Amino acid sequence: MNAPIVVDSVAALRAQVRDWRQAGLGVAMVPTMGALHDGHISLIRIALERADRCVVSIFVNPTQFAPTEDLDKYPRQLARDLDRLRDAGAHLAFTPGVAEMYPTGFATRISVGGPSSGLETDFRPNFFDGVATVVAKLFLQTAPDWAVFGEKDYQQLCVVRQLCRDLDLPVEIIGAPTVRDARGLAMSSRNAYLGEAELDVARQLNVILRRTAAELASGANEIRATSIATEALAQAGFQKVDYVAAREAVTLAPWRCDRDGRLLAAAWLGTTRLIDNVEIRST
Amino acid sequence: MNAPIVVDSVAALRAQVRDWRQAGLGVAMVPTMGALHDGHISLIRIALERADRCVVSIFVNPTQFAPTEDLDKYPRQLARDLDRLRDAGAHLAFTPGVAEMYPTGFATRISVGGPSSGLETDFRPNFFDGVATVVAKLFLQTAPDWAVFGEKDYQQLCVVRQLCRDLDLPVEIIGAPTVRDARGLAMSSRNAYLGEAELDVARQLNVILRRTAAELASGANEIRATSIATEALAQAGFQKVDYVAAREAVTLAPWRCDRDGRLLAAAWLGTTRLIDNVEIRST
Repeated sequence: MNAPIVVDSVAALRAQVRDWRQAGLGVAMVPTMGALHDGHISLIRIALERADRCVVSIFVNPTQFAPTEDLDKYPRQLARDLDRLRDAGAHLAFTPGVAEMYPTGFATRISVGGPSSGLETDFRPNFFDGVATVVAKLFLQTAPDWAVFGEKDYQQLCVVRQLCRDLDLPVEIIGAPTVRDARGLAMSSRNAYLGEAELDVARQLNVILRRTAAELASGANEIRATSIATEALAQAGFQKVDYVAAREAVTLAPWRCDRDGRLLAAAWLGTTRLIDNVEIRST
Repeated sequence: MNAPIVVDSVAALRAQVRDWRQAGLGVAMVPTMGALHDGHISLIRIALERADRCVVSIFVNPTQFAPTEDLDKYPRQLARDLDRLRDAGAHLAFTPGVAEMYPTGFATRISVGGPSSGLETDFRPNFFDGVATVVAKLFLQTAPDWAVFGEKDYQQLCVVRQLCRDLDLPVEIIGAPTVRDARGLAMSSRNAYLGEAELDVARQLNVILRRTAAELASGANEIRATSIATEALAQAGFQKVDYVAAREAVTLAPWRCDRDGRLLAAAWLGTTRLIDNVEIRST
């Protein structure tokens, strides 16, 4: 594979995409914060099934971190990421600095309602404003035909879909299945913070979610089933459970048991916060 | 002149603009709320100096009106507007309904800081969120190369420039001089609410602003000069003056007398609110 072109300015990004477009090539984009793992690689693979060219942005977006969160220690490993992009066949890495994305005087914020209500927002109040604003910017800088987002960040995927619909952003959003290790743990850059014993606990998150989703699909009482799941996560070794919640699959409104739903959870292992989600398939 | 194409769906708008683009034609847009007057026509003329094709949107945007404001009585006169567009040589009128712009479930808001602080925002707190959101949508629906906005709504022009810069919207914003009647009154759709006696009063707004800007440029004390202007507006017959304020021309930060500035005002004649602004040319 060829190494990807690496650009850190919007002007260079636009010039390259314009060249591709004039050659009649379709362009997909995969926005990331770097620290690439097999989950990201699967997004690139899906992008390349649709598009002739794949742009991967690597930008640790400060506006989606709260002051108390892990912005400073978030893993940064550009050289290794570029190796992985080369192996995956990505064509361009867009690696802007903070000043390129948010020049002096920057003052605009996009707030998406609807699916951003509750769940993550109850614990990270400004998170989705930060995500929506940077995603809109990345789309307007890159002008891709498609963009691929993982279902791992399920609420984010729903918010990005709503953002594009509401602002008429001409980008087709593709949701990609969560990539897991052999024992079901969802790939996440934050797994790097975990030791072996914590990884064993982390792997229970998906086990408990799958079991609870099956119970809900079979008609279990929602409040009771999610309470049991919360208790099971604590028993498994999670120190704090932010939420275990059943929602409608698209709008993230409260789940109605005759519809396809999604069971979402966030829980803490030490200072690391993990999220995961699974389908509730109505029977 | 040919009559403009009239479309009310985003899909039809995009199809037409795509055809023009494939033919190598440049496209400019003039967003309006209809009730077109000579001010709007001047924007179209400026658009046609740059672009091969001119799109004019006509949409009375409900999200930029407060519940107490004049949304329901805002003048609507589509047939007359289309005649004026034909005479002006506009190529396409985009006349979406509210449901096309804000479908059920719409939930996104864009807030621009910086130049939106104070002035209009002190009296119309959600106005610029409504403007920024609909302008972003119109730009993303139309994808123009240029968009023309009048200096009459000077703070709006500054907010739209900031919006495009901050979100990387690939549109060049052109500010157009305010068109006035022979006695200096700025053209406005809201002038239609005024009787002859009120129009005589309204014409004093620009006279007083020009006189005050000249005094400021010559070194008059800002607080004293704007107080005198406020008093003069009341004497002239305005029932209420929302503000008379000197600001920096680009950022709308407080004016420093060694820089080019803008003197802006808003005042009420009965139930009609008028705004105007003039340059402060530093000497």
